[in-house]
Amino acid sequence: MYYIGIDVGGTGIQIGVVDENGKILCKGETPTGVGRPYEEIIGDMGRCMLKVMGDNDYKPEEIAAIGIGIPGIADNDGNVIFCTNMGWKNVPLRKELQKYLNKPVFIDNDATVAGFAEYICGVSAGTHSSVFLTLGTGVGGGIVIGGRPWSGFHGVGSEIGHIPMDIGGVPCTCGNDGCLERYTSATAVIRMGRERMAQNPDSMLHTLCEGDPEKLTCKMVFDAAKVKDETALRVFNDYVDYMARACYTVIAFLDPEVIVLGGGVSKAGDFLLDAIRERIPQYLIFKDLPYSRIEIARLGNDAGIIGAAMLGRPTKEA
Amino acid sequence: MYYIGIDVGGTGIQIGVVDENGKILCKGETPTGVGRPYEEIIGDMGRCMLKVMGDNDYKPEEIAAIGIGIPGIADNDGNVIFCTNMGWKNVPLRKELQKYLNKPVFIDNDATVAGFAEYICGVSAGTHSSVFLTLGTGVGGGIVIGGRPWSGFHGVGSEIGHIPMDIGGVPCTCGNDGCLERYTSATAVIRMGRERMAQNPDSMLHTLCEGDPEKLTCKMVFDAAKVKDETALRVFNDYVDYMARACYTVIAFLDPEVIVLGGGVSKAGDFLLDAIRERIPQYLIFKDLPYSRIEIARLGNDAGIIGAAMLGRPTKEA
Repeated sequence: MYYIGIDVGGTGIQIGVVDENGKILCKGETPTGVGRPYEEIIGDMGRCMLKVMGDNDYKPEEIAAIGIGIPGIADNDGNVIFCTNMGWKNVPLRKELQKYLNKPVFIDNDATVAGFAEYICGVSAGTHSSVFLTLGTGVGGGIVIGGRPWSGFHGVGSEIGHIPMDIGGVPCTCGNDGCLERYTSATAVIRMGRERMAQNPDSMLHTLCEGDPEKLTCKMVFDAAKVKDETALRVFNDYVDYMARACYTVIAFLDPEVIVLGGGVSKAGDFLLDAIRERIPQYLIFKDLPYSRIEIARLGNDAGIIGAAMLGRPTKEA
Repeated sequence: MYYIGIDVGGTGIQIGVVDENGKILCKGETPTGVGRPYEEIIGDMGRCMLKVMGDNDYKPEEIAAIGIGIPGIADNDGNVIFCTNMGWKNVPLRKELQKYLNKPVFIDNDATVAGFAEYICGVSAGTHSSVFLTLGTGVGGGIVIGGRPWSGFHGVGSEIGHIPMDIGGVPCTCGNDGCLERYTSATAVIRMGRERMAQNPDSMLHTLCEGDPEKLTCKMVFDAAKVKDETALRVFNDYVDYMARACYTVIAFLDPEVIVLGGGVSKAGDFLLDAIRERIPQYLIFKDLPYSRIEIARLGNDAGIIGAAMLGRPTKEA
């Protein structure tokens, strides 16, 4: 049997047919077209799914289930409760999509789904427990325990980006202040970069962003840090320190076997990973004991399709 | 079959025989005598255990297992890795105790064990998932997932008191700064009380502690807050705010069915509980969705014996 995986983003919807080992066999894409009635968006999703299947000769009876990763949260009845980027609230995604292919439909948060994909066939494959952190515009979390995604009892868990890390600190889009993502997202690197470059007119960052701090990116800061621009290095070191504390937060709370770093910031690879690994020990309480391995995600953009598809796969016995 | 539960504290060791439903059938106690060689302490523990059994006619063949809660952490081989209050490091507790009664010995952290007891027969009985917070000199955490205590992959998890909550904040005994327990323990209430009373010579707190801030207790602050002493009320409100953020941290991370508050501070009961419950919603991201119930622990001092004993009970099917 095969599984359909659907990765819903603000720009495009990626759809793939996936085998039971998490291998993508074929895929397709349709624009999201945010702002249209949800019936239209889900209609495009359904037609694209059937086209991907048809173009590659997969019959409905060969499909066991459909899984969908959304940048929001869903309830147990397959309704999307919130999906801020899409402007969705209480959208009957399961029921609507089943009009196109009547199979079991599983829906979960995109960070949860990406973390699950890494557990299925990525860097945390087969581990006892893992916590995935997507370091992008914000910070999302994906927890896998006992071979299943963990979104909590009410489905509102793994929002690790919104744990308070510095009370009275940087205001967050969620309405609170000092949330973890204010210090560990790409947005945080850019904010800190702009602050530091304003104080240091000689920094290479001014050149990289062509004199316009609005054009500054996380990559520019890291690139300048790599060639030892002092201003960029300070931002990088501050960021690494926050990330070490964020990883320590995960260790002190859940102590998973692995912490996986994904999202745009993680593309910095070993340059970032080595620095974070080096910094974590200073925050550990039990200095002599083993603790979570820190790794960079392996599956990249495919994680969304793979993890979503695998939501519908029965749990294999350990 | 019956289970032995042993609650190891810095002053005394409590030992009980417990049935499979978590009911304590009989119990005894022996002084800890911290500072003596571990063989002597474990010897007293073993002899007290046999005496409690003998005095109440429980035969060795009726005992299925022994469980021990320690203010520290142990490895999977039954060695106590750290137990700061006892001065223990790498103590072969299982092996040593089996000289007195050769049964399977399970060891876990005391907060974890207390949280497990509440899951077995207390306020969180039979729940999907729970997080227990002991609010005492420090703050300990006990996580129960799928009917089993969760201490993480390496056994260093559920140290919720040491999650960074206010970077650059109050220095912690662990060497970090701004740890959650610096704001949510009884110690935190006393610290904030002393700071506020120094600025307010008219506060009732001066009378309650007989003019000596060193004698100030958490209970004095809460008692004065109940009768609306303005200084004490400010401390209480600040504490409630920190506790609401701490509960929100648990919700945002794990979203358990229940969060259970135990330890000395929780004796304030509904006065504290109602205030925390009222404050939490302002920190929630998903304002319209259900979230973890907040409850006060029910088992009090018995939780240590019960939870320890139940470590050895086979997991019942859900």
